[in-house]
Amino acid sequence: MVFELSKEYVERLKEAIDNKDADFIIESMEGVNPADISTLLYELNQEESKFVIDSLDTEIGAEIINDLDEDDRSKFLKNFNSVEIAGFVNYLDSDDAADILNELPVKAREEVLAGIENEEKAAHILDLLRYDEDCAGGLMAKELIKANVNWTIIQCIEEIRRQAENVEKMYSVYVVDNREKLLGRVSLKRIILSEDNTLIADIYDDDLVSVETYLDEREVASVMQKYDLEAVPVVNVQGKLVGRITIDDVVDVMRELADEERQIMSGISEDVEEDDTIWVLSRARLPWLIIGMVGGLMGAEFISIFEADIALIPAMAFFIPLITATGGNVGIQSSSIVLQSLASRYILEDSYTKRLAKVFLVAVLNGIVLAILVFGANMLFGKEFTLAVVVSIALFSVVLLASFMGTITPLVLDKFGINPALASGPFITTANDLLGLAVYFSVAHLLYNL
Amino acid sequence: MVFELSKEYVERLKEAIDNKDADFIIESMEGVNPADISTLLYELNQEESKFVIDSLDTEIGAEIINDLDEDDRSKFLKNFNSVEIAGFVNYLDSDDAADILNELPVKAREEVLAGIENEEKAAHILDLLRYDEDCAGGLMAKELIKANVNWTIIQCIEEIRRQAENVEKMYSVYVVDNREKLLGRVSLKRIILSEDNTLIADIYDDDLVSVETYLDEREVASVMQKYDLEAVPVVNVQGKLVGRITIDDVVDVMRELADEERQIMSGISEDVEEDDTIWVLSRARLPWLIIGMVGGLMGAEFISIFEADIALIPAMAFFIPLITATGGNVGIQSSSIVLQSLASRYILEDSYTKRLAKVFLVAVLNGIVLAILVFGANMLFGKEFTLAVVVSIALFSVVLLASFMGTITPLVLDKFGINPALASGPFITTANDLLGLAVYFSVAHLLYNL
Repeated sequence: MVFELSKEYVERLKEAIDNKDADFIIESMEGVNPADISTLLYELNQEESKFVIDSLDTEIGAEIINDLDEDDRSKFLKNFNSVEIAGFVNYLDSDDAADILNELPVKAREEVLAGIENEEKAAHILDLLRYDEDCAGGLMAKELIKANVNWTIIQCIEEIRRQAENVEKMYSVYVVDNREKLLGRVSLKRIILSEDNTLIADIYDDDLVSVETYLDEREVASVMQKYDLEAVPVVNVQGKLVGRITIDDVVDVMRELADEERQIMSGISEDVEEDDTIWVLSRARLPWLIIGMVGGLMGAEFISIFEADIALIPAMAFFIPLITATGGNVGIQSSSIVLQSLASRYILEDSYTKRLAKVFLVAVLNGIVLAILVFGANMLFGKEFTLAVVVSIALFSVVLLASFMGTITPLVLDKFGINPALASGPFITTANDLLGLAVYFSVAHLLYNL
Repeated sequence: MVFELSKEYVERLKEAIDNKDADFIIESMEGVNPADISTLLYELNQEESKFVIDSLDTEIGAEIINDLDEDDRSKFLKNFNSVEIAGFVNYLDSDDAADILNELPVKAREEVLAGIENEEKAAHILDLLRYDEDCAGGLMAKELIKANVNWTIIQCIEEIRRQAENVEKMYSVYVVDNREKLLGRVSLKRIILSEDNTLIADIYDDDLVSVETYLDEREVASVMQKYDLEAVPVVNVQGKLVGRITIDDVVDVMRELADEERQIMSGISEDVEEDDTIWVLSRARLPWLIIGMVGGLMGAEFISIFEADIALIPAMAFFIPLITATGGNVGIQSSSIVLQSLASRYILEDSYTKRLAKVFLVAVLNGIVLAILVFGANMLFGKEFTLAVVVSIALFSVVLLASFMGTITPLVLDKFGINPALASGPFITTANDLLGLAVYFSVAHLLYNL
């Protein structure tokens, strides 16, 4: 039942677009899920995509556009005028509409808002535009089913009928008092199984999880995951029901956050994908490469202090990569364990001291094992005794220092509201390279009595 | 409405447990969401946790245990005998029950199965145990509402009433023919709004996305995300409806996959968390540290070939960290961009050659910028001209090689069914360190005519 996208179909489609054959598009896309057509558009250029959208019903076009990636969508929408965009927005839920409007230039936004036929929807969108995109208010939709606590089931069903068109995903009816304060919910299952004249007051479930408008999207995702929710009502500071977040939007948020973390951990500074232009891809990668380069040059300057030592004992240079690589690896391991904890955020955190004590012990254990192994290997390969001692002492110290740095950096970044994943990227590697070199050459200088 | 976990409460609770004061536990946890009590258990030891579970209703206890992390749960369940575990399993959905049974030793599993009161449930669980945990069959639950296409709405409501206890999350009724083949679905909204004598055949929606039992959990997650589903029916190869996957389970899968990727990218070889023991944490980190160490020792051996060169021109050693760090950074960037593509998996992939050509161009661009910057810096800091040329040529080559390695490695790993995130971890850094050193010293040896 899932649409199969084949190379042959794409070729046939491009041909049809070249011939301005809208009929082929309409016929072959009959009954195909708009999400599949969105995927298909990635095989076409902007002009071809526009022809496809123009050929189809505005309602289908709206869904296709809504399913595009945010970046691609805002580029693609430049091909449409405000009247056309307003036409699409008419068919979208208020949250999706607000997302699209947020991507438009201010002038276009005003024009689109003016072009929305349904006044209630326009008001809804205007309300949603007030919220930051990264919080519950920015994720919620205004479309939901609300019942007064004094209603009967029959009144409730009447409301469901009235709103059936507007609220596509319906899981439960939210129960409010006369002042719109959220009291609880009644599941659709309950409504089906209750008598028509049952009072909502008698059957609603007041044991309900809700979130406030300002809650960060990460927290919203945590709450919905923890309580296994398919939808969560959003309330304002007075406890009034103002919207509803559905899990599909939160799933998208989770995916975006995972992508963002991966990019930050790998030292990529923009949201890029493999199919972006060469220029965008290079630009996203250069900043961290340059920071790494500056670190490397500082390392070079630092090693140059020991030029005379190296001239005397060139074997000192052999172990530079071992020291810097170990520092980097240990640092990334440490920070990613902290990252994991921060992502799950248990409520009662251990104190910093307790965490650092543990990190210290793990580092001592790892450091000892590595130092002994390297010492053994160096003796086996006939390296000089003093050098072997220097390398093992330096290695042990580097493991300790890098663990400390790797643990403390994400915690500090998080405290300052910066994404702690930054600590697992090239940042920690560069810092630990320098730290490792300092330790290694200092120990060597000392033990060799240079 | 969310339970607030405070240090004071935990202390008071521990006191109550010490005094075997079950009443305090029952009273203070009245109406608290089991997911919150699960979180609370992380503040207690095994014995204390068992006392809490024993004090509460078996049904609540079952939900609390079900909400624990998989690792913690299998440890915790060792405190209960088979009869007690069967008691909990009686209250769980078949998928959760199967997960718990999968964690038990074979003998205990048989005993628990024998202790399940509801025969239909025992049969469901036995059926689910056949499936691999990482596929749709392993994720699905057997609890769902199924209606024959020839039924009327009233028969359908009767079935909902009959199953209301068993199926907690109800979104729609799946429609099957006389041979149990899945035909489509009817949403609860539609049922509420339809007349009692309406035929299911007249109103069901045949435009339904379903997955087959063997589909990988990643694909299940992709499908549910793409089509914004809160539940997806699972069919066997004959198209018969055999189960249903709800989004809450898929959200957990997504979180686990993200955690797994983060750990692999950071060179951590077991699923660990900050609160694991020092021994477990060390053991998870050592394998990759040792691989990095072996790489470092190989690097040392390699550099030692050039001992005479370094004795002559010690400044050669200065730039070792710059070369290795850049190789590492470029490699991780490249592989994580591929990782991102693999995670989103567009259907029609560009060919390998086209991808590599693009990677090559990005690398050339980045390589040129870095080489020029480093050359400028070296001239500015009064480094020798030949050395500056050597460093820049080596840097440029390393960027090219590391990009190639970083792109090709995850693609090859993925082809062989290995998690491609492995390519973004210490693996790529170690390989690129060696590659970088080889290029650097070869270029130096050549240009200096040594």
